[in-house]
Parts: sequence; structure tokens; C-alpha cells
Amino acid sequence: MLSRVKYCYKYPFNPEFNIQPTVNMQTVTINRKILVVEDNPAQIRLIQEALKQSSAPHEITAVNDGVEAMAYLRQEEPYSGVWRPDIILLDLNLPRKNGREVLAELKTDPQLKRIPVLVMTTSRHAEDIAISYDMHANCYINKSRNLKHLLTIVRRIEEFWLDTVTLPE
Amino acid sequence: MLSRVKYCYKYPFNPEFNIQPTVNMQTVTINRKILVVEDNPAQIRLIQEALKQSSAPHEITAVNDGVEAMAYLRQEEPYSGVWRPDIILLDLNLPRKNGREVLAELKTDPQLKRIPVLVMTTSRHAEDIAISYDMHANCYINKSRNLKHLLTIVRRIEEFWLDTVTLPE
Repeated sequence: MLSRVKYCYKYPFNPEFNIQPTVNMQTVTINRKILVVEDNPAQIRLIQEALKQSSAPHEITAVNDGVEAMAYLRQEEPYSGVWRPDIILLDLNLPRKNGREVLAELKTDPQLKRIPVLVMTTSRHAEDIAISYDMHANCYINKSRNLKHLLTIVRRIEEFWLDTVTLPE
Repeated sequence: MLSRVKYCYKYPFNPEFNIQPTVNMQTVTINRKILVVEDNPAQIRLIQEALKQSSAPHEITAVNDGVEAMAYLRQEEPYSGVWRPDIILLDLNLPRKNGREVLAELKTDPQLKRIPVLVMTTSRHAEDIAISYDMHANCYINKSRNLKHLLTIVRRIEEFWLDTVTLPE
């Protein structure tokens, strides 16, 4: 439980806090929800830090394996009442249920398949890349071990997915 | 024929010219191929102009309707021998075969489904957005009629899809 709560940013388990449209004179800004499925705490921390620079309002929730990810997405206990994420950052190498299995379940589930899934992995195997796209990953990104490069990647994810793309509601 | 050739950038019908890996001291740079499926010549021109700023080597081919798009992708006459694109920018409102039909065919074709399809449309209908993601569009982007905004969108597409994402081979 601790390991899960530890990486949650802004009360992700309470629906009241989980969507906060703020209205100004021109636009309605939606608080975007990002689910990070990643077993490496250092990577989660880096993604959180990089996204703190973002001007787009957002919340990050992290879960540490594929079983937790599916329970979260299906709003099963202890995740009943959570909001569905707007995008998912999915590692491939995960304990209990790996990223490929999560991707296959997600993209064949009529209730979940429209949520964009960004595979983020250190794997550069051609087979992982091909299978991920074949299973309808929305994109495949090689995580860098270089901090500066990783920050650039996360900034571009934010600029593209939170500020350029129109996400499904 | 003229309307098709008119928008082709760098000999897209000749495989010899269609992939040009250039080697420098550090990396192998791949010439990325972009298929634009769009019936508005002004939009094609703007996308071409915006992508000219890109540092990533690329070629753009444009086709003007859904029937041409599928013939190109399936390498049917007069497109036999062309290279498959690395990404597709797909408008939804197209003559002869609309973007939804193209998307449905593409994403259920085992030979083509892994090619990323970026829906680019002026439509903001929730149904268009939802159905596009349900049919596994890789992302949905609202085209702006504002030139500056459109240039920003194309620059972000380039930064994300040509310089951040790992594309399938």
C-alpha cells in the first residue's frame, strides 16, 4: 500500500480532487490524469519531477506492476471510485503481469481501449517495438538512462499529449 | 495524376530515392517517410512548409482521397514499388473514401496496422474523437485555421514522432 500511495500526486484516489476544471476568461482547463505503470521508483520520481515543469494542469498516479494497473483501470478494490486516466505511461518489464499483457488486455477492452497508452521502456528489441504497435500501443518510446535526455522526452510527451493532441473524454 | 505528383516531395515513387540513410560519426539517420492524406492543397502546402524547418530528414508524399491512400499503402498500381510510410497524417473528411473508413481498413490489416496514424482534422465532435481512438488512431489532433498555431502543431508532431518516438521498421 505504501509503495503505491508514495507516488501519488494530488489525492488520486478521491474523485472530488481528481478533476478540477478551472475557468478563466478564454478557456476551460482540464486537469489531466496520468497513470504511470512502472516498478522503478527512481524512474517514477524523474517523470514526476520533469512533469512539474509543465504548464498543463495534471495529476500523476503510479502503480508498480501490471496487476495493480489493471485493478486501477477497472476500478476494482482498492481502487473503486478512482477516475480513469487520460493517458497511460506503460513500462514493458513489470512484475506479476508484464506490459505486453497489460497492453493486450487494455486494447481489447471496449471500456478502456480508447485511452492512449505510451509504451516507455529501455528495450530496443525490434520485436518489442513491432508487437507493441501491432497491439495498438499509441506510441513506443525508449527511456533514456541519461537524465537530461529523459527530461527532454518527458517534456515532449507533455507538449504533445497534454497540449497538442485532443484526448478522448 | 498531376494533382498527386504536384504534392510529392523528393521523388516518392522511386524506391532508390525513397530511403537515404546518411551516416555521420555518431549515428545512422533514417530518412522518414510521411504520407499526408488530405484533399486541401493549402493544408498540404502548410504541412510541407512547416516540416521544412525540421532537422529530421524526411520525405512527404500527399494523396488527396481515401481510395488513393489505400492504393498507395497497399502498393497497388500506380503505386507499386513505393516505400511504406513511417507515419500517416490522416484527414477525416475526404472524397471517395473518408478518413474513418481508411482508419478502419488500416488498423485491421495485419500488414499495415503498425504504421502510426495521426488523425488531423478540423472536427471537434466528441463522436469523431471517441471513434478515432476506438479504431486505434495513434492520436487525434485538431487542425487549426490559425497559421501560427498550425505551424506549432506540425513542429510538435515532428519533435515527437520524428525525434522522440521509436517507430516500427
